Amino acid sequence: MRSDLPVSRAQTSPRRYAILAPGLFATRSAKTAHGVIAYGRDATVAVIDPDSAGKRVRDAVPYLASDAPIVASFRDALQFRPTALLLGTAPPGGALPATWRATILQAIDAGLEIVSGLHQFLAEDAEFANAAVRSGSTLWDVRTPPAARLFSGEASNVPAVVVLTVGSDCAVGKMTASLELTRAARAAGRDARFVATGQTGILIAGSGVPVDRTISDFTSGAVEELVVHNGTADLLFVEGQGAINHPAFAAVTLGLLYGAAPDALVLVHLATRTQIEDYGTPLLPLPRLIEIYETLCACVKPAAVAGVALNTHGLDDDAARRAIENARAQTGLPCDDLVRNEPENLYAAMAPRFAHKTRALEV
Amino acid sequence: MRSDLPVSRAQTSPRRYAILAPGLFATRSAKTAHGVIAYGRDATVAVIDPDSAGKRVRDAVPYLASDAPIVASFRDALQFRPTALLLGTAPPGGALPATWRATILQAIDAGLEIVSGLHQFLAEDAEFANAAVRSGSTLWDVRTPPAARLFSGEASNVPAVVVLTVGSDCAVGKMTASLELTRAARAAGRDARFVATGQTGILIAGSGVPVDRTISDFTSGAVEELVVHNGTADLLFVEGQGAINHPAFAAVTLGLLYGAAPDALVLVHLATRTQIEDYGTPLLPLPRLIEIYETLCACVKPAAVAGVALNTHGLDDDAARRAIENARAQTGLPCDDLVRNEPENLYAAMAPRFAHKTRALEV
Repeated sequence: MRSDLPVSRAQTSPRRYAILAPGLFATRSAKTAHGVIAYGRDATVAVIDPDSAGKRVRDAVPYLASDAPIVASFRDALQFRPTALLLGTAPPGGALPATWRATILQAIDAGLEIVSGLHQFLAEDAEFANAAVRSGSTLWDVRTPPAARLFSGEASNVPAVVVLTVGSDCAVGKMTASLELTRAARAAGRDARFVATGQTGILIAGSGVPVDRTISDFTSGAVEELVVHNGTADLLFVEGQGAINHPAFAAVTLGLLYGAAPDALVLVHLATRTQIEDYGTPLLPLPRLIEIYETLCACVKPAAVAGVALNTHGLDDDAARRAIENARAQTGLPCDDLVRNEPENLYAAMAPRFAHKTRALEV
Repeated sequence: MRSDLPVSRAQTSPRRYAILAPGLFATRSAKTAHGVIAYGRDATVAVIDPDSAGKRVRDAVPYLASDAPIVASFRDALQFRPTALLLGTAPPGGALPATWRATILQAIDAGLEIVSGLHQFLAEDAEFANAAVRSGSTLWDVRTPPAARLFSGEASNVPAVVVLTVGSDCAVGKMTASLELTRAARAAGRDARFVATGQTGILIAGSGVPVDRTISDFTSGAVEELVVHNGTADLLFVEGQGAINHPAFAAVTLGLLYGAAPDALVLVHLATRTQIEDYGTPLLPLPRLIEIYETLCACVKPAAVAGVALNTHGLDDDAARRAIENARAQTGLPCDDLVRNEPENLYAAMAPRFAHKTRALEV
C-alpha cells in the first residue's frame, strides 16, 4: 500500500486524541505521545496508561504543559469523547505489541480513527481492516511510504534555503530543534516551514514522508520530492533522522542528507548521551561528527554546520550552562539549548548562515 | 510480498535462459545479462535483441566467451528450448518497459519461468499472475525483499573474515571483483564464498539479498542476516553497491557498509570514469574516497581498504598498465585489474590483510 506524496491528512476539524501508551507514558519510549502533546495541532483529551492512571499529563511528564487526564483503560478514556486513538509509542522495529490488539479493536468498534506510526500496518491486518469496515472507522498508517521515485537533483534548485538537523544519535531532539527553529524563524518574520520526515513529525505537521520506511533505492528521491513540494517557502527546517555513525540507522541518515540537498546543517546532541543507544558504540566528539557530516555533503552539495542545538535535558541549570559553553568552545559555533532557553537566541546567531543558497557540484 | 531470507532458488537442474534485452544487449544497460552469461551457473541458450540478431554473443560483446545465438524474437528463441525467460536489463528505477509485456506473456503462455530483477514485481501484476496460473509458469522476482529485521551487531561476531567491495560509482565492477576474488581465494585453498547483494549477483549465486529493495530502517539488518547466514565460511566476499558519494544510492551503500560489518574493504574503480554516471557529480580522488570509507567504518567497526581493483575496460594495454601504476602510487596499496590480469596476483597481494578479524567498537 502506498500513499500519494506527500502524506497528508489535514482535517478541517482537529482530532481529539486518546493516546495509548500502557506502562510507558512517563518514559522516553513514549516520544511520539510527548511530541504530539507538545507540538501537535490536534488535542489530546486522555492518555491510557495504567501505571500513571489518576495523574495529569504534566504530573507524569513535567515538561509537558497539559492537564489531560491519564486513565487506566480505553473504556475510562471514552468519557472524554476522543475521536481518534493514537498509538503513542514506537518500539524498535515497529511491530505491534500483542497486548494492544484488544484496545485497538475496542476503539475501532467505537468508531474512532486509529492513528499508528508502526512499521506493521494496521490496514494490512485483516482483523483490524474488517472491523474498520464494519464500524466505519478509518485507519491512518502514518508510515505508509510514498511512491517510488529516484533522486534527480531537483532539490538542489528550490528557492527555499534548506536547513537539515543532523544528530549524534537517535532520540536526541532533532525534531524538537527543527520545530523550535521554525517557530523562532517565523517570529523573526521569515516564511519558515517545518518539514517532517518521521512519524511523530508527520503527526504534528499533518504531512511529510516517513523516510525510514522508504525503499533504500528511493530514500533520497522521496526526501527530494518532499523538499521540492515545500520549496517555495523562504526557509525549510527539515527534520533529521538517526546519525551518520549509527550502526542500524545510518542508511536513513545519509539518504536524508543527500536527498534534502541542504544549504546548512544544525547539529543536535543530547549532552548526557555518551554512546549510541542500544548499541554501545561510542559517540564521536562533536568536531569530528561535524567534519564527517560536512565531508559527506561536500561530495554532492557543500553545506556547513551552522550551529549546535544542545539538548541539556537532565542537567541542572549550572551543568547545562557549562555544557553549552563547552560545546561552543569545542566547535567554535553558536550553541544553545532551544527548549531550556529562548530559541530566538540560537536562531539569531545562526540566521546569517541561513541567508544563502549553496550549489550542487557540477563538473 | 516478502521472501524468507536469504532469497534462494537453487534448483537441481540448471535453467536454460532466453535473455530478453531488446535493443540493448551490446550496451552496458544489459549488465544483468552479461553478468549471468559470464558467471552464472545456469546456461544461456539464446539472447533476444533485434538489433544484434544473427550474431553470436561473443560477436556482440567481445569479453563474453559464449557462442549462444542472438535472435530477433521470443518465437525465434523457442527452437533453443529455453526453460526460463530472464529480463536482461535493469532500467534506472526498475520499472517494466511497456514494450516487454507482450514477450513476457508469450513466454508465460509457453510455460517458461520468468526471472526478473525489476523493482516492479511481476507477481503483483494481475495480467502476469493470472497468465502464470493458467500455464503453470512460475515468476521469480529476484528483488523480493527479506522480512524486516533490525541490525543487532551479530554480524561483527561471525567466524568468517568479511571483505566488502566498495566503489567510486555504480557499475564500475564491484560484483565482478567480488566474484574474481572469490575464485582466486578458492584457488589458493581458502573456503571463500561470494555473497550477493544485487539482482545480478543473486541470479549468479542462486541466493542473496537485494539490498536496494530493503526498507531503509532494515537495510543494515538485512545485510547482517545474510552475512551471519554465510558466516561459517573462511572468507566472505560481499558484493558492494553504489558509492558513498552517489547522490541517489549512497543510502544503500552505507547500509551495506555498516550491516556487513566488514573486516577489510576492496576499492573498485573504473579507470575511465570521471563523474558519477547520470548525475555529473565529480568523482573523488582515490585517496580521499578511501579516507571517507575508512572514516565511516571507524565509527562502528574499523576496517581498512586492502587494495584497489581497477577496472581498465576500454583502455589499451599500455594505458591500462599506466592506470594501474598510477593508482598504486596514489594510494600506496596493491592494485590490479582482476579481469585483464590474473586475479591471483591481486588476491595474493591483499591476502595478508584478509587474515584477521577486527572488532566492533565497544565502550
